[in-house]
Amino acid sequence: MGEETMNEVFEAVCDMADDAAYAQQTLAGASTERKNAVLLDVADALVGNAEAIGEANASDMRDAAASGMSEGLLDRLRFDAGRVAATAQGVRNVASLPDPVGEMVRGRNLPNGMRLNQVRVPIGVIGMIYEARPNVTVDVASLCLKSGNAVLLRGGHAARRTNEATLRVIGEVLADHGFGPSLVASVDRFGRDGALAMMEARGHVDLLVPRGGAGLIRAVVENSKVPVIETGAGNVHIYVDETADLDKALPVIINAKTQRVGVCNAAEKLLVNGAVAEDFLPVVANALTEHGVRIHADEAALTIIANAGIDGLDILPATEEDWSTEYLDYEMGIKVVDTMGEAIEHINTYSTGHTEAILSEDYSRIEEFTRRIDSAVVMVNASTRFTDGGMFGLGAELGISTQKMHARGPMGLEELTTTKWIGYGTGQVRP
Amino acid sequence: MGEETMNEVFEAVCDMADDAAYAQQTLAGASTERKNAVLLDVADALVGNAEAIGEANASDMRDAAASGMSEGLLDRLRFDAGRVAATAQGVRNVASLPDPVGEMVRGRNLPNGMRLNQVRVPIGVIGMIYEARPNVTVDVASLCLKSGNAVLLRGGHAARRTNEATLRVIGEVLADHGFGPSLVASVDRFGRDGALAMMEARGHVDLLVPRGGAGLIRAVVENSKVPVIETGAGNVHIYVDETADLDKALPVIINAKTQRVGVCNAAEKLLVNGAVAEDFLPVVANALTEHGVRIHADEAALTIIANAGIDGLDILPATEEDWSTEYLDYEMGIKVVDTMGEAIEHINTYSTGHTEAILSEDYSRIEEFTRRIDSAVVMVNASTRFTDGGMFGLGAELGISTQKMHARGPMGLEELTTTKWIGYGTGQVRP
Repeated sequence: MGEETMNEVFEAVCDMADDAAYAQQTLAGASTERKNAVLLDVADALVGNAEAIGEANASDMRDAAASGMSEGLLDRLRFDAGRVAATAQGVRNVASLPDPVGEMVRGRNLPNGMRLNQVRVPIGVIGMIYEARPNVTVDVASLCLKSGNAVLLRGGHAARRTNEATLRVIGEVLADHGFGPSLVASVDRFGRDGALAMMEARGHVDLLVPRGGAGLIRAVVENSKVPVIETGAGNVHIYVDETADLDKALPVIINAKTQRVGVCNAAEKLLVNGAVAEDFLPVVANALTEHGVRIHADEAALTIIANAGIDGLDILPATEEDWSTEYLDYEMGIKVVDTMGEAIEHINTYSTGHTEAILSEDYSRIEEFTRRIDSAVVMVNASTRFTDGGMFGLGAELGISTQKMHARGPMGLEELTTTKWIGYGTGQVRP
Repeated sequence: MGEETMNEVFEAVCDMADDAAYAQQTLAGASTERKNAVLLDVADALVGNAEAIGEANASDMRDAAASGMSEGLLDRLRFDAGRVAATAQGVRNVASLPDPVGEMVRGRNLPNGMRLNQVRVPIGVIGMIYEARPNVTVDVASLCLKSGNAVLLRGGHAARRTNEATLRVIGEVLADHGFGPSLVASVDRFGRDGALAMMEARGHVDLLVPRGGAGLIRAVVENSKVPVIETGAGNVHIYVDETADLDKALPVIINAKTQRVGVCNAAEKLLVNGAVAEDFLPVVANALTEHGVRIHADEAALTIIANAGIDGLDILPATEEDWSTEYLDYEMGIKVVDTMGEAIEHINTYSTGHTEAILSEDYSRIEEFTRRIDSAVVMVNASTRFTDGGMFGLGAELGISTQKMHARGPMGLEELTTTKWIGYGTGQVRP
């Protein structure tokens, strides 16, 4: 362990991917019934082994706390019996969802008598790189199994023992059902080199999904030779139009900013139309202050808010850097815009393409906003916190794609498939 | 021209992409009616200017011939009045196809009263890199315009004057309809650096599609920082099962191999089940020889064919390299396999994932083959030459994707879109 050269790690990871691909051939042809039976047994086995998993997690938590991990990250790392049970319930949800494999996407008869079907098929071997979130191990394994894919996991050093204990449970259930345990395998024993090897393993790993901090995702996107789906970065905007119902707007903004600050669908920026800025900004700044949110305001917003005499106000002038920053904290950038067009241009310039919202009661302006905003999700008069596979009814999610290729927005089962065309003929040749 | 540093070219290409993106915003919101009107006028204008385009092409052809271009490539480069008219008819076909933009992919009501729509939207700015095929300029422009995308073209030095003349015609029609000519623009004036700049222009170009030789495609796939769709390489296999109707099989094989040899959906390899090899190989070898096809045979096939006493037979022992070679010529690799499983493993090892075919009358074996083969298209008792956007009823095609992400197989209008989720609420917040 740790003794291998990078080249040896690369060979080992390619071998693991090839073993996974071999096992995946059996899974690809398995009936929905059989896959669901595996998932339900995984859920039961997780609950049955919650104590052992919890003990492994307690060791990980102790080391992480000793090494100075922040409270927020420690909370993500926690995988106690209660969380194991909740995650197991997620596996049962995935079992209850429709199986995307074999679904006919398009079907037609050609003039020459051939019958042409386009059907959904698994992608093959998925690589997943994430950090210190043991529940992701289970979510990803269940989504991949249901969609007929094998998966290689790099779950990070901090959660190593928790992930090991979890994968042992999943592997035993797979074996009981006659599937190879290489279907869901970890490259964590290779440390960071395991992640680097997956990024090089073009032709062995079919798709790589990084999930975590912006730095991790950027590194994978820029360096991977395997196709990548970019996920998660969320510099999320809310635009308050002059036609907004301001009483409705306030709770949506407060929910989007403060209901949970460390997540990608939390709002980071507020753009307010100048026509309502004098009325609305003091109200919203007061509410944000009550929730402990520091404000980064542009000049126009700063003047209005500073004059409002809000107790305990924490405000700074916004810098150019603020407009592209995802705070993931109790901080919000606020800007006054003269027109909706200015808001749209600002968003399309600085957004990471995750989620934006408009608060407005005007039909035509809503239509224009939803059409012109170039992001995965546009919310109308609703909190940006709804961008979530569970909320969208997709079951658990693998991540939220902020790119345009293959998948955009929350990635559920369907996004873990590709298609295959099958042409059924009786000897047709091309004239 | 040619005086710019690579950095200047990169800046210029990014500016062009940004101009294209700006013009694309108008196109994205244009009605189907308005886009079709543009396409029909483009078709008329191409026919009306066929002479000027043909003259430009004649100059390109003269230079290409003088520089020793092969007959096959010269034929691809030819864009005379007849071909211009045929290509213009393709533009009319695209106009007649359904508009994918705005199509609702999924729609549901959430338990909290929100209405959730997933709709198709254009991708944005497409970059296209191709070689010496002027008709591709028109095909790609028409597909991109109909699907609401802007496009930057690198059409290669050999076709430069032809492409210039064609793009002038398209640009004039765009201007007549109030669209910016930057919607369909060429980076050819920067030579090869134009292609390199597009590959670096992440955040400016949304998708890059290389179409051409294997070397070109590999270079783009390996070096591009912009998302790429891999197209075209076709090491295409036909498997003749012991259950095949051999009378039906022969014309399918001959059509797949010889109807047009220089294209990606032409068959390159023939795998014959050992149970019918003694009967069938002499027949097929005789027919291939009559069509001037050189055979690369494995040991078992070589013995059978050599003993058959075929006049004019051109046969060589197959090397390991043969199994992964796309000949694009009157050559075919032939191998005897003991079982269908061996054929499937051989194909999944050596194929480029384009198209494979099975010739069989046995239901269960066909089911197994179509399920286990990991390629974009599987043909049953039909020629591999049918893998084609036109044949599939998709209209013109941008290329044939051999990758699994985003698009697989012939890429038509739908494959040139991504999706956007829109959530319509009335003040909902996340509990």
